[in-house]
Amino acid sequence: MPSNPSFVLRGIDDVVYEERAIPELGDHEVLVTVKKTGICGSDVHYLAHGRIGHFIVEKPMVLGHESAGIVHKVGSKVKSVKVGDRVAMEPGATCRTCEYCKSGRYELCEDIVFAATPPYDGTLARYYRLPADLAYPLPDNLSLEDGAMMEPLSVGVHSVYNLGGLRANQSIAIFGCGPVGLLCMAVAKALGASRIIAVDIVAPRLEFAKEYAATETYLPITRQEGETNPDYSKRNADNMKEKLGIADRGKNAIDLVIDASGAEVSIQTGFYIVKTGGTFVQVGMGKADVTVNLGILMTKELNYKGSFRYGPGDYPFAISLAASGKIDLKPLVTHRFKFDEAIVAFKATRTGKSEDGKGVIKAIINGPEDE
Amino acid sequence: MPSNPSFVLRGIDDVVYEERAIPELGDHEVLVTVKKTGICGSDVHYLAHGRIGHFIVEKPMVLGHESAGIVHKVGSKVKSVKVGDRVAMEPGATCRTCEYCKSGRYELCEDIVFAATPPYDGTLARYYRLPADLAYPLPDNLSLEDGAMMEPLSVGVHSVYNLGGLRANQSIAIFGCGPVGLLCMAVAKALGASRIIAVDIVAPRLEFAKEYAATETYLPITRQEGETNPDYSKRNADNMKEKLGIADRGKNAIDLVIDASGAEVSIQTGFYIVKTGGTFVQVGMGKADVTVNLGILMTKELNYKGSFRYGPGDYPFAISLAASGKIDLKPLVTHRFKFDEAIVAFKATRTGKSEDGKGVIKAIINGPEDE
Amino acid sequence: MPSNPSFVLRGIDDVVYEERAIPELGDHEVLVTVKKTGICGSDVHYLAHGRIGHFIVEKPMVLGHESAGIVHKVGSKVKSVKVGDRVAMEPGATCRTCEYCKSGRYELCEDIVFAATPPYDGTLARYYRLPADLAYPLPDNLSLEDGAMMEPLSVGVHSVYNLGGLRANQSIAIFGCGPVGLLCMAVAKALGASRIIAVDIVAPRLEFAKEYAATETYLPITRQEGETNPDYSKRNADNMKEKLGIADRGKNAIDLVIDASGAEVSIQTGFYIVKTGGTFVQVGMGKADVTVNLGILMTKELNYKGSFRYGPGDYPFAISLAASGKIDLKPLVTHRFKFDEAIVAFKATRTGKSEDGKGVIKAIINGPEDE
Amino acid sequence: MPSNPSFVLRGIDDVVYEERAIPELGDHEVLVTVKKTGICGSDVHYLAHGRIGHFIVEKPMVLGHESAGIVHKVGSKVKSVKVGDRVAMEPGATCRTCEYCKSGRYELCEDIVFAATPPYDGTLARYYRLPADLAYPLPDNLSLEDGAMMEPLSVGVHSVYNLGGLRANQSIAIFGCGPVGLLCMAVAKALGASRIIAVDIVAPRLEFAKEYAATETYLPITRQEGETNPDYSKRNADNMKEKLGIADRGKNAIDLVIDASGAEVSIQTGFYIVKTGGTFVQVGMGKADVTVNLGILMTKELNYKGSFRYGPGDYPFAISLAASGKIDLKPLVTHRFKFDEAIVAFKATRTGKSEDGKGVIKAIINGPEDE
Repeated sequence: MPSNPSFVLRGIDDVVYEERAIPELGDHEVLVTVKKTGICGSDVHYLAHGRIGHFIVEKPMVLGHESAGIVHKVGSKVKSVKVGDRVAMEPGATCRTCEYCKSGRYELCEDIVFAATPPYDGTLARYYRLPADLAYPLPDNLSLEDGAMMEPLSVGVHSVYNLGGLRANQSIAIFGCGPVGLLCMAVAKALGASRIIAVDIVAPRLEFAKEYAATETYLPITRQEGETNPDYSKRNADNMKEKLGIADRGKNAIDLVIDASGAEVSIQTGFYIVKTGGTFVQVGMGKADVTVNLGILMTKELNYKGSFRYGPGDYPFAISLAASGKIDLKPLVTHRFKFDEAIVAFKATRTGKSEDGKGVIKAIINGPEDE
Repeated sequence: MPSNPSFVLRGIDDVVYEERAIPELGDHEVLVTVKKTGICGSDVHYLAHGRIGHFIVEKPMVLGHESAGIVHKVGSKVKSVKVGDRVAMEPGATCRTCEYCKSGRYELCEDIVFAATPPYDGTLARYYRLPADLAYPLPDNLSLEDGAMMEPLSVGVHSVYNLGGLRANQSIAIFGCGPVGLLCMAVAKALGASRIIAVDIVAPRLEFAKEYAATETYLPITRQEGETNPDYSKRNADNMKEKLGIADRGKNAIDLVIDASGAEVSIQTGFYIVKTGGTFVQVGMGKADVTVNLGILMTKELNYKGSFRYGPGDYPFAISLAASGKIDLKPLVTHRFKFDEAIVAFKATRTGKSEDGKGVIKAIINGPEDE
Repeated sequence: MPSNPSFVLRGIDDVVYEERAIPELGDHEVLVTVKKTGICGSDVHYLAHGRIGHFIVEKPMVLGHESAGIVHKVGSKVKSVKVGDRVAMEPGATCRTCEYCKSGRYELCEDIVFAATPPYDGTLARYYRLPADLAYPLPDNLSLEDGAMMEPLSVGVHSVYNLGGLRANQSIAIFGCGPVGLLCMAVAKALGASRIIAVDIVAPRLEFAKEYAATETYLPITRQEGETNPDYSKRNADNMKEKLGIADRGKNAIDLVIDASGAEVSIQTGFYIVKTGGTFVQVGMGKADVTVNLGILMTKELNYKGSFRYGPGDYPFAISLAASGKIDLKPLVTHRFKFDEAIVAFKATRTGKSEDGKGVIKAIINGPEDE
Repeated sequence: MPSNPSFVLRGIDDVVYEERAIPELGDHEVLVTVKKTGICGSDVHYLAHGRIGHFIVEKPMVLGHESAGIVHKVGSKVKSVKVGDRVAMEPGATCRTCEYCKSGRYELCEDIVFAATPPYDGTLARYYRLPADLAYPLPDNLSLEDGAMMEPLSVGVHSVYNLGGLRANQSIAIFGCGPVGLLCMAVAKALGASRIIAVDIVAPRLEFAKEYAATETYLPITRQEGETNPDYSKRNADNMKEKLGIADRGKNAIDLVIDASGAEVSIQTGFYIVKTGGTFVQVGMGKADVTVNLGILMTKELNYKGSFRYGPGDYPFAISLAASGKIDLKPLVTHRFKFDEAIVAFKATRTGKSEDGKGVIKAIINGPEDE
C-alpha cells in the first residue's frame, strides 16, 4: 500500500516525519511525486518563529513549496500533462472566480491555497496534489532541480519583468544578494539590461553576484557612530553614486531599483539611487515599519511598488528564460540533501553555511522516493 | 513710462514692493498683465522659512504662481493668443529638449523655470512673461479667478486623473481638506467617482468638503496617551473601516487613496484603507522622513506614487472640467485682496483665517493694474 | 415533475418548443429560472442563416443569451448567491486555466461555453445553468429587464471603456444606432464624454439617439452614381467634418471612434474622422473583407482594435453604471413578448418593426414560468 | 568663402547640384558637416514620382535624410555637443509646443520640419542645420556610417519596441526583407526574441535575412490563376502555419507581426498568422486602400497599429543597441558612392542592384567634404 511520508512542522523548532494520506484527485488535478524541493527563507522562518506576520502555524503543517517532480496520477479530465511527465510545480492554487483571479493578478486572491503557508500543507512529501495547469512540463534541457528553482525564479520574473517592466539596455540596481536578489539579476541579464548593480554588505556574496550576473557591485560604506539610518543612507548613497558614476537622469541613471534585502538602509539608499521618474520594486521583507523619504518620492515622482509572490505568466516565462539558455540556475544550487536529512538542510539554510563551512545559496532536498 | 510693481520676498518674513523691469519678449513668448493670483501654501512657506527642502531663497524673489491675466503683448511668432485674451498662466517653463520634456513628463525637467521657486521670480507683479503655449485662453464662462485656480486644480488633475488613473464609478479616499485635497475631491466628482471619502482632523473642514464634493467624511479618533504613530494609525484605520464600511477587496474597497496632508498618520492609515492591488498617490508634503508599512505595501502589491506639480495635458484638462461645469471653483475662493494688501493675504493664509475670523480656503490677490 | 421547456433552433427558419432535461449542477454552479431574455442580432442571424462565420448550427440548439432570472438552486459550494436572488446572467463560461483566462482576457478563451453559440444551448428555456460567479445579483433599483440588458451593455462597456479607454471630457463618434451603438453612447455619456456623435443612415434612429444619449448626430450624404466606397467615404467624411466642426487634432478632434455598424463606408469614414493618434474600436460585424486606408492608419498612427464580446469586470461595471443611475436602459426596451410568442419577437427584431409598425430597438421575451 | 553644394530634386527624374546658402544658426542649433547619407526608398520615390501621397514636390528640394556628420558650428546656447563631435542626425525638427510634442508623440506634430519631405530641404549637402538635441554624439565604437543608419534603425525601434512592445522570448514575424524589415529583425534579435520569422517573395533576400537576424524564413506559395488576394492569402497563411508550426495561441503563437512590405497579401496573411490577442504593426506602405479581414480583427481582438517615422527616445535607444553590440549595421551597407555620384546611388537603389549586378540593401553617399 502506497504511503505519503511528509516532513511536518509541529511548532517552533519542532519538526517530524509523518505518514500522511495520499490526496484524492479532482477531475482537473494531478498527483505529483515530488523529486526536488528547494528550501526558502520563509520555510526557515516558520521553523524558527512559527509565523510570518499574520500567517501563524496553528496546527501541524508540511513544509516546502519550491518543488518539481514527476506526474504520478492525473484526474479524469486532465489533458495538459500525463503520467511520467517531469513538471515544475507552482505552489499557489487560486479560486479562479474573484476579481483578482479574473483580471490577471491571481497572486492577490484571498482564497489562495499556498503550499506551506498556514494552514495549508507544503510539498516536502512523497506526493503533492495540484491543479493540472499549475504543473508545467519541463523541456528536456531542464533538470528537475531547475524545475524546483522555477519558484524563486518566478519571484524574480514577477519583480523585474512584470512589475519592474525592465527592458533591454535599461539599468538596474539590486539590493541584497540572497537567492531572490541573485535571481532578479539573472532575469535582468536575460532581458538584456545594460547595467546590473549588485549591493550587499557581505563581500563574498558580491563576488558571487559579479561572477553570476551582475556587471558591477557595491559594498556599503561603514556606518559612523551614532549615525541614524536616514543620515547613513544619504551618505552611503552619495558614495555609491560617486563610486559607480550614477546620476539622477540621463544615460548614467538607474531605471529600476529592486530591494531584495528588506533592510531599511537599502530601501533608503535605493530611493536616492533610482532615477527621476523611475520605478522601485520592494520584494524583500524585513521589519514591517520602514522610514522612507517622501521628498524624494515626490520630486522624482517615483513609482514604489510592492511585489508579492508571482502572477499569471510568471512561471511560463521563467521556464522559457531557463530553457532558452538565457539563465543558468545550476550555480545557485550549492547543497543537496536526502529527504531524511531535511532538518540538516534547514539548519544549513538558517545559518547560511553547511557543516563544512561552505556558504549556502540554495539547498535542495530530494524526494523520499529517491532513497 | 510703464512700470512693473512687484511683491518681493527678501528674507524670512521680509517682503517689500519693488519696481522691476518689464521683461523683454522672445519670439514665442507673451507678456501678461496679471489680474488674479491665489496664495499657495508654498508661497507662505517661503515667507516663513526662506526655503522648501533644498530650494532656498538666496536673493530677492517675486512671490506668487497661481495666476491669470490678460495678454498685454505677444512675441513676433505667437499665433495661439492675441493681445486682450484672458488667459490662465501655467507657471513652469521647461527646456523642451530633455528626455522628460520629450517623453511626456515635463514636470520632471531639471531646467524648469518655475514661478516663485528660487531663483525664479513669481507672478505677483503687474506683468509676467511666459511661453505662449503656457498661456491658456479662458472660455467665456470662466472668470479670471477661475483662471488663477487652474494652477491648484491642475495639481488635483495630475494626482487623481493622471497618476491615480481614477475612472467613473471607482472609489477614492482623500486625506487632507486643504485647497489641494478639496480640488482632488472636485476632480474625483467630475470623473464620476462613486464614493469620495474626505478625511481631516478639523471638523468644519469636513463639513465644507461634504458640501463641496465629498460623499462621506471621516474624523480620526483620538490618540491614546503614549500611542506610537503606527499603533494609532492601525487603530484609526480599523475604526474608519468599520464606521464607513470599507473592505480590502470587492465593492466596498477603495480604489485610490490620495494623501494631500503630508501627515504620517494619514499615510499610514491610507495604507490600511486602500484596496488590495490599489494605488496610493502622495501629493501632500510634511516632514520628509515618514514611516510606512512594507508588509501592507507588499501583500497588497500597492502602487505608491509620488506626485510633483503637473504635466502635459493637465492644465487643458483642468480648464475643460471647469468650463463644462463639472467643477465649480467659486466656493473655494473665500477671500480677496488688493495688490497693496498682499501681506494681509499672506497672513490670513498662514493662520488659516482672516481678521474677522472667517476660515480661509483660497485667498486671491488682485493685480496692481486694478487699483 | 418540473420540466424545462426550451425554444430550439433546428435549422434555417426552423424553430420549435421542446422539453429539455433540467441540467445537473456542479458544486460551483447555479440553476437560474430565466425570466427575461433580449433578442440579439446574432440570434436572428442564426435563425435566418444557420451560421455566423465559422460558427455553424449543426444540431438543434436553444436560442437566447441576453438573460436575467431568479436563482432556483445552488451547487453545494456556492456562497456568492442564494435561492431567490435576482441575477443578471453572463452567458460565457470559460476554462479558467488558459493563458487568456489567467491574464485577464477571458473573452479570448478557446474553450468558452457561450450560450446560443453552436454547439452550446442558449437561455430561452425555463432553466439555465451557469457558474455561480457569472450570476450577478441585481441591486434593488434594477429590474429583471435591466438585468437582461446587461449583456449588450457589457459589449458597450468592453468597447468604449475597456478597449477604447474613453475618459471624462473626451469625444467619441459612434457609427450605427442599433442596440449596441446606442449602448456605446450610453456608456460614453455615463463616463462624462464631452461630445457624443451618433451616425446612422436612418434618420429616426438618429432622432432616438439624440434623445437618448448623443450630443450630435450625422446623417451621411447621398452617394453619387458610380462612386466607389473609398471615394464616397472621403466625400462623406469631408462633409461630416465641415458640418460638425471636426478637426484632426486639437479640441475639435475625436478621441475615439466606435464602429457598431459593420458597414465598410462607416469604417472608412471613421478613419478620416478619428483624431491623429486616436483609437478606433470595431464592434460591429458586416461582411468580413473590408477595405481600409493604410495611409491614414500610418500617418495618424491609429490604434485599430477588434472588440469581441466582453471580458473580466465588464458585467460588474455595466451593473454599477446602471445601478448608479448613470445609464437608463428602459427607453431601449420597445417590445415585450410571452415565451410562447418567441417567434413573433424574432420576426419583429428581424424586420426592425412589430406588426403595428413600431420600430424595434430591443425585444424582450418573458420566461415560460411567467405565463 | 565656404559654400554649400547640395543635391537638388527639381522635378520628376530631374536632379542637379546647386550651391546653396549656408544656414544661419539659432541659439540652440548646430551646423553639421554631413559625412554619410543613406538612400531611402522615399528619396527614390520623390525622384521617380515627384510626390508621396499628399506630400508633393512643388519647388526644388535637397534630397536625403539618413545622415551623420561632424559638428561644424554651434549656436550660442548649445551645451550638449561641441565642434568636432561625430553625430547622428535626427531629421525631424518639431514644434515642441503642440499636444503631441508635449505628450511624448512628437512624430505626430503637424509642424514638423522633416528633411527631404516637401517643402523642406534634405541633408544631401555639405552642411545641414538642426536643433542641437537632435544631433546625437556617436560613441567611439560606432562609425559615421553606423550613424547614418540610425535613421532607418529608429524606424525599426519605433515599430518593434515602442509600438509593438516586443519583449525577451516573445516571437515575431516580419513581412518584407528590405532595409526596414531587416532592421526590425535586428531590433527583435537585440531584444531577445525567441523566434524571428522573415517573409519575402525574393528567395535571396530570405537567405540574407536568415544570415543576418532571422531564425526562420518563409517564401510564399505560388498564386493560383484567378485567385483573389483574400483567397490566396488564406491559402498562403494555412501553408505557412503548417510549414513553420504556427498556432493561434500557446507557445507556438506569434506575439507580434510587422508588415514592412506594404503588400496587401502580406497584411492579409499576417492577420491569420498573428496570435489571438496579438499586435500587428504596419510600417510598410504600398497602395493606400487595402482589404483586411474584420472577422479576424474582431474574434482575435487584434491591435492593428499604424507606425509613422519615430518618436521620443527611439534615436537614443537605436544608438544604445548598436553601441552595446546587440545590433551590427555593417552587413546592411552594401554600396558606397561619392557625393558627385549621387545619381548613380539613386539608380542602384531604385533598381535594387548596382551596375555589376550586386544587390543593394543600403547605399551610402559620402559628403562633398570628403572628395
